[in-house]
Formats: sequence, structure tokens, C-alpha cells
Amino acid sequence: MALRHLQYQHSCPESLVRLKACREQSLRLIDGLSDADVTVQSMDDASPIKWHLAHTTWFFEEFLLVPHVPEYRVFDARYRYLFNSYYETVGPRQPRPRRGMLTRPALDEVKQYRAHIEATLFDSLPNPLPEALSFLIELGIHHEQQHQELMLTDLLHLFAQNPLKPVYRSTPEVMSESASTPLAWVEFKSGRFSVGNTGHGFAFDCEGPQHEVLLRPFALASRPVTQGEWLAFVEAGGYHNPAWWLSDGWVCVQREQWHAPLYWTQRNTRWWQMTLCGERAVEPDAPVCHISFFEADAYARWAGKRLPTEFEWEVAAAAQAVQGNFASAARFRPCPTSRDPQSPLQQLYGDVWEWTASPYVAYPGYRPMAGAVGEYNGKFMNGQYVLRGGSCATPEHHVRSTYRNFFYPHQRWQFSGVRLAEDR
Amino acid sequence: MALRHLQYQHSCPESLVRLKACREQSLRLIDGLSDADVTVQSMDDASPIKWHLAHTTWFFEEFLLVPHVPEYRVFDARYRYLFNSYYETVGPRQPRPRRGMLTRPALDEVKQYRAHIEATLFDSLPNPLPEALSFLIELGIHHEQQHQELMLTDLLHLFAQNPLKPVYRSTPEVMSESASTPLAWVEFKSGRFSVGNTGHGFAFDCEGPQHEVLLRPFALASRPVTQGEWLAFVEAGGYHNPAWWLSDGWVCVQREQWHAPLYWTQRNTRWWQMTLCGERAVEPDAPVCHISFFEADAYARWAGKRLPTEFEWEVAAAAQAVQGNFASAARFRPCPTSRDPQSPLQQLYGDVWEWTASPYVAYPGYRPMAGAVGEYNGKFMNGQYVLRGGSCATPEHHVRSTYRNFFYPHQRWQFSGVRLAEDR
Amino acid sequence: MALRHLQYQHSCPESLVRLKACREQSLRLIDGLSDADVTVQSMDDASPIKWHLAHTTWFFEEFLLVPHVPEYRVFDARYRYLFNSYYETVGPRQPRPRRGMLTRPALDEVKQYRAHIEATLFDSLPNPLPEALSFLIELGIHHEQQHQELMLTDLLHLFAQNPLKPVYRSTPEVMSESASTPLAWVEFKSGRFSVGNTGHGFAFDCEGPQHEVLLRPFALASRPVTQGEWLAFVEAGGYHNPAWWLSDGWVCVQREQWHAPLYWTQRNTRWWQMTLCGERAVEPDAPVCHISFFEADAYARWAGKRLPTEFEWEVAAAAQAVQGNFASAARFRPCPTSRDPQSPLQQLYGDVWEWTASPYVAYPGYRPMAGAVGEYNGKFMNGQYVLRGGSCATPEHHVRSTYRNFFYPHQRWQFSGVRLAEDR
Amino acid sequence: MALRHLQYQHSCPESLVRLKACREQSLRLIDGLSDADVTVQSMDDASPIKWHLAHTTWFFEEFLLVPHVPEYRVFDARYRYLFNSYYETVGPRQPRPRRGMLTRPALDEVKQYRAHIEATLFDSLPNPLPEALSFLIELGIHHEQQHQELMLTDLLHLFAQNPLKPVYRSTPEVMSESASTPLAWVEFKSGRFSVGNTGHGFAFDCEGPQHEVLLRPFALASRPVTQGEWLAFVEAGGYHNPAWWLSDGWVCVQREQWHAPLYWTQRNTRWWQMTLCGERAVEPDAPVCHISFFEADAYARWAGKRLPTEFEWEVAAAAQAVQGNFASAARFRPCPTSRDPQSPLQQLYGDVWEWTASPYVAYPGYRPMAGAVGEYNGKFMNGQYVLRGGSCATPEHHVRSTYRNFFYPHQRWQFSGVRLAEDR
Repeated sequence: MALRHLQYQHSCPESLVRLKACREQSLRLIDGLSDADVTVQSMDDASPIKWHLAHTTWFFEEFLLVPHVPEYRVFDARYRYLFNSYYETVGPRQPRPRRGMLTRPALDEVKQYRAHIEATLFDSLPNPLPEALSFLIELGIHHEQQHQELMLTDLLHLFAQNPLKPVYRSTPEVMSESASTPLAWVEFKSGRFSVGNTGHGFAFDCEGPQHEVLLRPFALASRPVTQGEWLAFVEAGGYHNPAWWLSDGWVCVQREQWHAPLYWTQRNTRWWQMTLCGERAVEPDAPVCHISFFEADAYARWAGKRLPTEFEWEVAAAAQAVQGNFASAARFRPCPTSRDPQSPLQQLYGDVWEWTASPYVAYPGYRPMAGAVGEYNGKFMNGQYVLRGGSCATPEHHVRSTYRNFFYPHQRWQFSGVRLAEDR
Repeated sequence: MALRHLQYQHSCPESLVRLKACREQSLRLIDGLSDADVTVQSMDDASPIKWHLAHTTWFFEEFLLVPHVPEYRVFDARYRYLFNSYYETVGPRQPRPRRGMLTRPALDEVKQYRAHIEATLFDSLPNPLPEALSFLIELGIHHEQQHQELMLTDLLHLFAQNPLKPVYRSTPEVMSESASTPLAWVEFKSGRFSVGNTGHGFAFDCEGPQHEVLLRPFALASRPVTQGEWLAFVEAGGYHNPAWWLSDGWVCVQREQWHAPLYWTQRNTRWWQMTLCGERAVEPDAPVCHISFFEADAYARWAGKRLPTEFEWEVAAAAQAVQGNFASAARFRPCPTSRDPQSPLQQLYGDVWEWTASPYVAYPGYRPMAGAVGEYNGKFMNGQYVLRGGSCATPEHHVRSTYRNFFYPHQRWQFSGVRLAEDR
Repeated sequence: MALRHLQYQHSCPESLVRLKACREQSLRLIDGLSDADVTVQSMDDASPIKWHLAHTTWFFEEFLLVPHVPEYRVFDARYRYLFNSYYETVGPRQPRPRRGMLTRPALDEVKQYRAHIEATLFDSLPNPLPEALSFLIELGIHHEQQHQELMLTDLLHLFAQNPLKPVYRSTPEVMSESASTPLAWVEFKSGRFSVGNTGHGFAFDCEGPQHEVLLRPFALASRPVTQGEWLAFVEAGGYHNPAWWLSDGWVCVQREQWHAPLYWTQRNTRWWQMTLCGERAVEPDAPVCHISFFEADAYARWAGKRLPTEFEWEVAAAAQAVQGNFASAARFRPCPTSRDPQSPLQQLYGDVWEWTASPYVAYPGYRPMAGAVGEYNGKFMNGQYVLRGGSCATPEHHVRSTYRNFFYPHQRWQFSGVRLAEDR
Repeated sequence: MALRHLQYQHSCPESLVRLKACREQSLRLIDGLSDADVTVQSMDDASPIKWHLAHTTWFFEEFLLVPHVPEYRVFDARYRYLFNSYYETVGPRQPRPRRGMLTRPALDEVKQYRAHIEATLFDSLPNPLPEALSFLIELGIHHEQQHQELMLTDLLHLFAQNPLKPVYRSTPEVMSESASTPLAWVEFKSGRFSVGNTGHGFAFDCEGPQHEVLLRPFALASRPVTQGEWLAFVEAGGYHNPAWWLSDGWVCVQREQWHAPLYWTQRNTRWWQMTLCGERAVEPDAPVCHISFFEADAYARWAGKRLPTEFEWEVAAAAQAVQGNFASAARFRPCPTSRDPQSPLQQLYGDVWEWTASPYVAYPGYRPMAGAVGEYNGKFMNGQYVLRGGSCATPEHHVRSTYRNFFYPHQRWQFSGVRLAEDR
């Protein structure tokens, strides 16, 4: 193994090097978690971590090995059923809400499955890689990175259900030498702008085709809404006044009895929040997190502002370097801005995904990929909103200015926050 | 009464003349219906017809008489609770799913309420009308017209639940001298187009502000998809193949056990449909009706086409006269095209509302009206899609090229159909 | 008709005379109700009054005319589907929760159906009646009487949903010359007792076979629990302390947010209750009504007593005349005891049905009737409890000491109350 | 530890010796299970095995150590919340449907908790034990034995959800030298019988007070219904004919789409069943298992028989030795009868719990125990039926002739079967 590892570092295609690193990172994320921790499913929207580990492996088996390596024999035929997510083309599958029933295969067996598929990939893929395979490897890496983020969001949700409030990672305090940056407004002129994927570098199909949009003059807040600002909304009765809410949102607030972001609890007069670092006091200077679109939209209306569209966000972000508080920083929670003096827009990338006003729909001329991988994005284009920018749980190098994340407007378990906009 | 009626025809403002006509039309729609027919609520989405009659009256009482006629005393204080639809600003209300519990007030009492409010309006409004009141009258007329359409859609839903398949109106057969027009494609060039309300004539707030959009070259089908074409989709197994469906749509198909449009039934080998004219054979040449967005979208994918965006539709419709098979034609069901030689686009208006690919969202710079009437449109801007063009149940003079109707993608009880589009 | 009516009074069998009276009584109950009042269904457990009127007619058509009158042609074949309640043997039927969709046939048509079936019965049944038919007539009368009570309970439920709180009957105040009788305890000795139907007179199959039971010494309260006594339970926090409740009952209390009997409302500090006579103040001296088994049981535990078994009740009631506040008294609500000096047990019959501790199960040797009418009782022997004694909505001459009514422990819309018992 | 163990064997009270054995048995049951296997909850009715292990420990801590050992300090205050089952008197608790969220404490921590409580009990309880404590020890043993059975039933349910069909125990085949015993009928005379707990030996409160009942002549089947006999019911369309079913049962059959016992699957023409020994062919000669009361009752009606009452069963079983296929036999599934020549009634004890016709209600004069342990039985006396005799998952020495198990009529995941009865 060590020998092959060496060889691979020297001779194998660059994409396989990154694949190796990506796969190792998935396993690194579960350090310290028990077989039980990675097996339980805390709600229908979440999946067990073990399932994520197996499903991302199944992806390579199903879409690379099975169709492209003629002599390949599947690791375990039953895994095809267990670890298919939603690919109707591939066949029936373990119902999503029942993924947590799978105490077998055990974590160790899933690790063996992972190792086997990886070894087979490295042994059997031709060098150099044909473009089609190279694209699938790339797609598989990005797919696994998405699941790496989900592993963290789903684990947090699980731990939040536990009265013991387990700690995933104890991170050193981030020194915040002073209060948060005062909110400023960054102005943008109207115009005709090109948006969407340029074709250079990897992008998901939904990021294209590149096309032009018209924007009117607008301004973006210099940073996301902070927990301190959100507290003012809570204390102003924001969760009790229908005036601020979309009709569907107000139904949701009442049915779910929302009165603060997910994971916030008030004890006596203090507010606490559950994080991957355990339960902590609400941090006034850090971006608010785990809010739904409905909450983001209501807050904006209360504040006399609005959400940016995804294209306003993209145009503003296009010129900015993709750096920020990502998972690689190992903080695993949004932190106060570090005040990068080089950019007027703070924390565009990392910390929290930013809800936009834009429904997740197809760009003009959009065509899904052919075959089963084409089920990846297009079929979810209903009822969801676009989020931009990545979070403290997003792998570095995963996002870009054209990247479109999407969730339903009531969902809150992602690391989702909000940056305000206004007309100019 | 006769005298006042005469006077009013000669001296009262034009908008009051139209108000009078509109109010009379509401009552004309219930000819032949019993107290029971107008009281029962067939599902949460529908309302009893009696409730529509009272609510449209409450609208004038609440938004005109109460704030603008100082000496006005409410007809019955409890009606404020019973007939408020969703205006949080106004106060609590009869829960929507419980509107069908109101066997009292009886239909006759609701008619008295209607007559009282009308008489008071005509007696007490200043002449000439100040612009604010004139606008509210106009808003009230359009509001009542919307409910006139809902009275028909809700009645059809109620009658469709009844194994006796009651007939609302027996209409003479529409002579269809020949088969339906062959489908043609009408092309449109790319460009920068102005869309939305121009400010001339009445429009709902969501139709503005006028703004510019970019369109790429496209083509629209010359007529809506017909029932015959839809039958081919059904027989090709369209309702059993997940490949054609959005993920949310497929969940809906399976949960609701859809296998044809709402109101379609197969007996032996023939297909029947429930209509306001009773149960009738499916008509191959008439537009398909009572389909959801999910079905429209799936059909388009199966046909290798797509839905038009609302702006493609609006640009195509802008030059065309607003005429077609509306409620005033008293057919109360979509009919085969009459082949208007003057326009390449048949049945754009009337017959069936046409689903578009566009989520119902705010136009750039949108501001809801101030006060309670501002709750009218904006708060519903989530999860719904825009439909255009009006139907066989829409009052004449109610729609226009900028008119945006909106429903959730699973809803089918409206007179909703589909016209295909494609890229050029 | 008048002639035949005369003849029938002189010549027809006694059971037909009672049938005629029973049928007339059903129509008398709907005096003053509108087509809408009799059509709407207020919840799944309740049925529209029009449906009761038609179903009790269908019973005679289906079980007498169709099998026993060879030349009989059904009135309307579709009614067989519409007005079958739950007879699987007879065939499919309008789903129970959709009975309220039937705005057609109209009330007048249902009245014609009633008249037609009655006329056919009187014209076509042989005289004298064979025993089998005579029994079915008797069964049909008692069946219709049960539905007469349900018409009242279901109407009250419907009117209680209406914020206008409609009045069904304005009855003169019952003069209650003094406060309620002090509660006394009436003792009964242990022994071996015969219970169940003796075979003399009509009884439902579930009342037999007659058999022996052992009873230990016990005492019954001299009257039902009053509204005043119940108020003490409410004010003592009875609805907020799980100690008094069965586990299933406590789940119900919390899910349904019970804090008083059904139809009770507190405004400011006073308690009101909805009745068939409109909304009225809670009457301290009248029996508490519209309580579930769970509430009756919890109250008894709080009071340090228990519910009687159905056999304790039957043994105590056997010697007592069947008289009390029944529907024929036209009070339509439970009233303070009239202090009949002849009996130590007040209000055993009438006023309120009395929950017992006995699950509704088959007596030893029980056999349901043969054929479809055998579906009448036995198949409901699960999860329900026996109530005894009849109520203010029960037709006179309908109940007897062996009569077993039964409802689920969470149901409250019947005129159900409670009499306490204790061991001696 | 070894020393103390020795000492304890020589000097400690007999009940503590049995306690020790019982506690060890609980841990023996989880041999071979992973942390994940013991953590996941497969449905609301089931609990995680780890939770059973902790809850049975909490029982001793809460009811023995806390009130009776003054210097005792709770092991972990949070466990009081996590591992309380339903004792309202004790305080709030982890909601039952969320017991599966507790990936922490890990299995090892729960084992430490168990060891700590055991050690403290043995160290701190006075010797000799006062009667009150001795009773609580006894209650705790029987309580833990009940949970030992639940551990097996809940584990089977979990494994049955897993497409991999895991094997809990591979047991050697039971040699069945010949076909099942032909069914015979064992007759019993009528009479007045004493039933219920005599006061000798441990019994749950619901088994008393002892009292007399009258029985009519009856006969019991010589053995439970077999899987082969059940197959005939399935193949005769038993699950598709409402005539055999209670009304509530028929609703359940249709809603849950039952067409065979729980865990039965048909592949091609053969029937398989999931067991603790993995998936196995249906065994014609073994008792049918995992059927609901509704199924047992429907089968009996189809077969022209009935279920025995709990008192018929008890009177028949009273004279018979308590021996059979219990968990100690380590077969973990019902097996063909071993034809004990000494008794005409085969398999009364062990193999499968036998549904009776008797609702689970209080015996005359029943009083629950004082204090929190009084919440143990009485509050569940609603809507459930009594089962008798124990199963292949029941610990030996746990059941007796007066033992009343109880479940809801729709529940099937217990090892529940049926023995027929008939009138004589």
C-alpha cells in the first residue's frame, strides 16, 4: 500500500491526487465519532454519516467502475440498493427516512468498502484518463465535498437532539480583539452583466449556461447580519408579528413554534446556541446562522431592506478572492469578521451560506447532463432558493462565485445566514 | 330602488356603474344553486360560494365604508371575523379550512348583506369620487372578479366529489366543424423588452414596476396542448416514469396516485371528465385542463420542449387583442380553437390559464401597497408559479397581457393548461 | 293518502303504526333547519342530518323491500352507494368523511325518497307480517331512533363550530326551585345476578345472551356528577395533572388541548356552554355533559371513586321505571334533577348517557345476526366503552336497563356524563 | 471484585443473588451487538437496546438508592431525564420517539452506569433486607426481565428493517422428527373459579386481587395455531375479506397493507419470515408468531372458533407446570411442539404469547401501588388486550398462570400468537 501510495503521488493524474486527498479528508472528519454517532439519522432531511461515507463511494462504483471497467465485479450487490440516494435511473433504493435503520454494514465494513473502491479505481483506471472519466472523477470529488459539508450539518443536528450536548470539536477561542465591524453599504452600478459558469474549471450543470442579466443600481451590506443584530429582531417581537413574514413563512413559524434561530435556547435571560463545539453563548459579533429563508426574508423586511438576488451577489463576488472561514480552518462555526482591509465586502465566502431572493430555477438554455448523473441538479428545481458563498463547514476549493447551493425556504439545519441588500 | 337605479345610471361615476354590473354578475352565477350548494366546502383550498359572496362584500365594507364613511355602522360585527380572508392587519378570522361550517348566515342573509353594503356605497360615497376611493372601488371590482372565477372552480370541485355528477350549466354543443388546428411554432427574436404594468389602466401591484428583461430567441406553440395530445402522454405511461418529473412532482404523483388530469376517469376503455356541464367524454381537440404545474412541466419534458417563461408569454401576447373563451361566453369549459385567422397564436386568452416556468416573485423595485390592502399579493410570493391568459371561467375584461395569476405547483382545481415553448 | 292513512291506523300491524310515528318524528326534528344545516358535515365522526334521513330510509329499502318484495325496483340505484353506512356485505359506499359533499340530492329529494319508501312499505308488506319482517321493522325503528339521537348530537356539533352560536330550539327555562340534591350513596349487596336481554321485547343482539355475573358489594351515587362539581375539578387543575389520567387519556388531553368539557368556554371569569338552546351559562345543578370516558375516569380518580361497571349499573337500574328527561321532553339539554321521591337513584334514565368502566365486548355465547344486519354491532367490539341510560336526546321508549350504547374513550360529542361508584 | 463476588454468594440475600444473575443475563443478551445495533430505534413503539440497559438501571437508582440510601449521590443527574420511561411523578423525560437520538452516552458508559449502580446496591443495602426493599428488588428484577424480552423484540424489529437481514443468533436446527401434532380440543366444565394472584410469590399489582369468576363450558385447542394453518388463511384470501375482521381491524389491514403476519415475505411462491436467526422459510409446524389481536380475532372467526378469555386460559393453565420454549432455551423463535405427553395442552407456556379476548382492565377492587411505582400498570388499562403464557423471548421464571401481558390490538412486533377456543 505504501509503495502504491508513493507511485501514485508521482505518476497518477492530478485529479486522482485530489481524489485521494478528498477521500482521506472524509475519514478525517469522523475522527472521534463512534459507530453509533455515524449510524443514527436524526430527521428525514439528514442522513447518517456512515451513509454519506458509503454513498460517496457508491457514486464512484456506480458511475465509474461499473460502466467503464469491464471486468469490475460489484463489491456487494446489496449496496447498490442501500446507498443509492435518489437516482431513479439506477433503480430502487433504501427509502430516505429509513437510512438510519442500517446498523449493518458497520462502520468498519463501510471503511473497507471505501478502501476497496479507491484501490480498484487507482488500479484500474487508464493513465492518462480520457476526458469523460476525468470529468466523472472531478464530479465525484465535488459530490463528496458536498457530502462532507452534509456530514457536519447532519452531525450537528444529531448532537443537538441530545440533552448531553456533545462536543464534536473543541476549538480554541477565536480572539476577537474588538467589536464587530460597523455595517457599511457597498454600492454597485446598474448594467448588463454576464453571469454563470464560463466553462473554465469545474462547475455543476446548474451553474450554466453563461448568460446576460440586467441589474439595476443596488447596494450590499458589507457583512452578514450578526447574532447581535438578530437578537434585536427577536427582542422586538419579530417572531410574533405576521407583518414581517411571507404567508407560508408565518404558517411555518406558528406550526413549528419558532422564536429564534434553530439551536438557540434561552435560559433565564441568556441565549445559548448549540454548535459543533458544544453549547456556547450566542456571540453578538459572529454571523447569525441556522436561519431559514423565511426568517432571512422576514428579518430583511423588518430592517427595511431586502435579500440580494443571486445575480447581484455573483456580480459583487466575481472580483473577490475565494477565501474565508471554511472547514479547513477547523473552527466549525461562523466567527466574527476578521476585517480584511483589502475588500469592502467581508465574509462573502465561508462562515455562512447567504440566502438570496432567487428561486432555484434553470438558466436560459439549461440542459441536464445525459444519463443518470443528469439527475443531479435539474430535478430539484422547484420550491427552493439559491444560497451563495459557502460556510464554515464547506471544504476549501469547493465553492466559487458562480456556485449555486439550494434549499427549501423552511430548512434551517444548514449553516445558513443572510446578507442584506437595498435598491439604489 | 328603481328610481335610484335610474339616477345612478345617469349620474354616478363610471366605476360605480361597473361595480353595479360586477355585483349583479356575482349573483347571476349562483342561479340554480341551492343553499347547500353554496355552503359546503369541498377542500381546504376551496371556499364555499356563499363565503365568496360575503367576503367580496366585506372587502367593500372593511376597506371603503369603515375607513372612509365616518357615520357608517358595521352591518354585523361578527361578519368581520367570519368573512376576513387572510388580512392579519384586520384581525383574527374564521380558519380557512372551517369556512364550510357556516350554515348560518343563510344565503338569503348574505344577499341582504350584499344589498345593504351596495346601497350604502351608492348612497354615501361622494361624487365625484376622490382618486383614493376610486382606486379602492376598482380594486374591489377586480377582487370580486377573481372570486367570481373561484366560485366556478370551487363549485366544480364540489360537484366532482358527488357521485351524482351534478350539472351546473347545460350548454349547447360547440360545433367543431373539423379537427383541431395542427400545432405550429411561432418564432420570436431575442432582445431587450419592457415588461410589466405601464401605469395605464388598473393593474395589481405585483404587475409592476415596469422593467426591462433580456430574452433569447424562442418559439411558442400556436395553441395549448390538447386533451388528445395529453391522452397520448397518459397512454405512453407518462404518469409512471420518474424521468419526466421534477423530484417534488414525482413525490406528488405517487402520494396522490395521479394517473390523469384532475376530473378525468377511465371507464372501460373510454375517458371521461367532470365539467361544469356535467360529466362528458374527453374532447381530443379542446385544450387539456385541470393539470398541475408538475404535470405541465413533465409533459413538456416528455415532448422534448419546455414551458415558456412569463416574460416570453407577455412579450408574445402584448400585441394581441384580449379576446377569447371567457366566462361571459357561458361555455364554462375549454373548447376547441376557433381558428382566429388574424393571429398566429390561438387561445392565448381564455379557455385555460397557461402555466409558465416562472416562479411568482417580486419584480425589481416592487413595493406592496400601504395598509391592509398591501397584504394582497406580496405575501404570497413563495413557492408558486405564474399562470397567464385567463380561462373559460375568467370574467371578461379582467385579464390583460401583464396579468399574473399564481398557484402552487401541485394545485389542479383551477382551469389550468399549458402551451409549450422551445429555444430557437 | 289521507284515506290510506286512516285505513292504516285501523288495520295495519301495531309495529307499522309505530314505524309511521317514528318516521314522522325524524322529520319533526328538522323543523326550522335549512338545506345547508342538514347538509354540512362538521367532522368525520358526525354525519349530515340529511344523510341520517336518507340512510334510515335506505335501511328499510335495502333490508326489507329489496329482499322481501320481489317486484320492488330501487328508487335510485345510486342511493345504494350514497347511503350505505358501513355494510361491507352490501357493497362499496360514499366514504364516511365525504358524506358532507352531497349537496345533491337536496333535502326535498330526500324527503321524496322517504315518502316513497314509506308508501311502498305500507302498500306492499303482507298483513299480518311474518315474524322475520316484523323483526326487521322493529330493528328499523330502533335503528332510526338511534339516528334521531345522532341528528341532535351532530347538529349541536355543527352549530358549535359556528361563531354565531345558532339556536336549535329555544326552550322555556326549567324552573329549578332549589339547589341540586345533595349527593347520596345507594348501596347494593354482592351476589350472583342475571344480566342481559331476557328475550321479551326488542333488544339489539349485543344485549344478549342473558347470563350470570358475580358482583361484589358496591354503592352508586344518587345522581350524576353535576356541572358545579365538575367546575371544582377544573379549578383544582384536574386537566393539568397527569396523576388522574390514564396514559392514553393524558396524551389526548395534551394533543387536543382539553381544559374543560367539550362546548365549555371561559370568558372573563364566567363559564359558558354551547347547547341546542344556544350558548348558555354553565348550570351548576345540571349533570355535566359532553365529557369523554377519559375525563369521566380521571374525575372519578380525583374524587377518590371509580366508574361503575355496566353490570352494576344494570342491576341497579333493573327495578326502576324507564322515565326521565328524554328527547320527547323537548328540553334538549340535561337539567337539574327533578327529585323523584320514589327512587333513591335520580336521573338514571335520560339527561346524560353514563360512562361505565366496561369495555364493549361480546357477552358469553354472543352470536351476531345472520346476513348484512349482522354487521350491526359485533364488528364494533373493540376499543369502546359501554354507556348506559339514555340522554336528553334519546327518543323515549328507545332505551331499557339492558341497553348498551358504546363510544370510543376520547369521544365527547355525545350527551355523555358520569355517575360515580365505590366499593363497599 | 472477585472477593466481593464470593462474599456475596455466601452471605447476601437470595433476592440479591437473583438480581445479580438477572443483571448478568441482560448483558449476555447483547453479546455480538455493536454500539450502533444497541443505539438505533426502529419505531416509536420500540426502544434502543442501550436504552433498555440504562432504564432498568435507572429503575434501581431512582426507586431504591435515591429514596432509601441517604448518602447516595446520583451517578449523572442528566440520566434521570434520559432514562425515565413514563413516570410523570418522577419528572420530565426524553420523549419516547426520540430515544434513538442518544448516541451518547455510549454503550461502554452505560455499562459503567450499570456496574456502578449494582456495586452501590450490593455495598449499601442493609442485610437482612427490610421487606419494602426486598419487594422493590423483586419488582426491579421482574421489571428488568420484561425489558430483556423487549430487547429481543425490539432488536428483531430493527434487524427486520435492514435489507441485509442480519442474524442475531445462529441456532442449531430443532429436529422435528415428524409433522405437527393434530389439533385436539380439551374440554373444561362450567363453574365458579378463583382467578388472580394468590399472594404467594411475586406478582404485579394488576394480577390481583384474587376474585371469583363464572365460566361456562368451553374447550381450548391443544396447541397454538401453526404457521401452516395460517398460510391456509392467507391463501383463502383472509386478508382481503372484511367479513372476518373487526371494523377497526379492517381499517388497519387496509391502511397498513397487511397481507400476512409481520416479518413474512413472499418471494416467487415461497414464504419467508425474518427471525432472530435471520431470514428463514416459514415453518408449517411451528406456532404462527407476530400477529396482532386483530389478525388473531379474524382468524378465529374465519375458523368458526373464538379467542379464549383470559380467565378460561388461566383456569386451564393453573394446574400445569410452567415450562416450555423460553429465552433460556436460546432458540429465540417459536418451534414445533415437543409433544409433552404429560399434558393435553401443548405449548401453553413459552413459544408465543397467546392473545385472549379480554380487554386489559382492572380486577374488582384493584388498587395500584402507592408512589411512582404505582404508575406501573394501572394507567395503561385502556384499549389493550391481555396475552398469556410467555414466549421464546421471555426469561424463564418470569411468567406464571396469573401473569397478564398486554398490548394494543394492532401491535405485532411482540412474539404473539393465538390458541383457539370454543363454547361447549
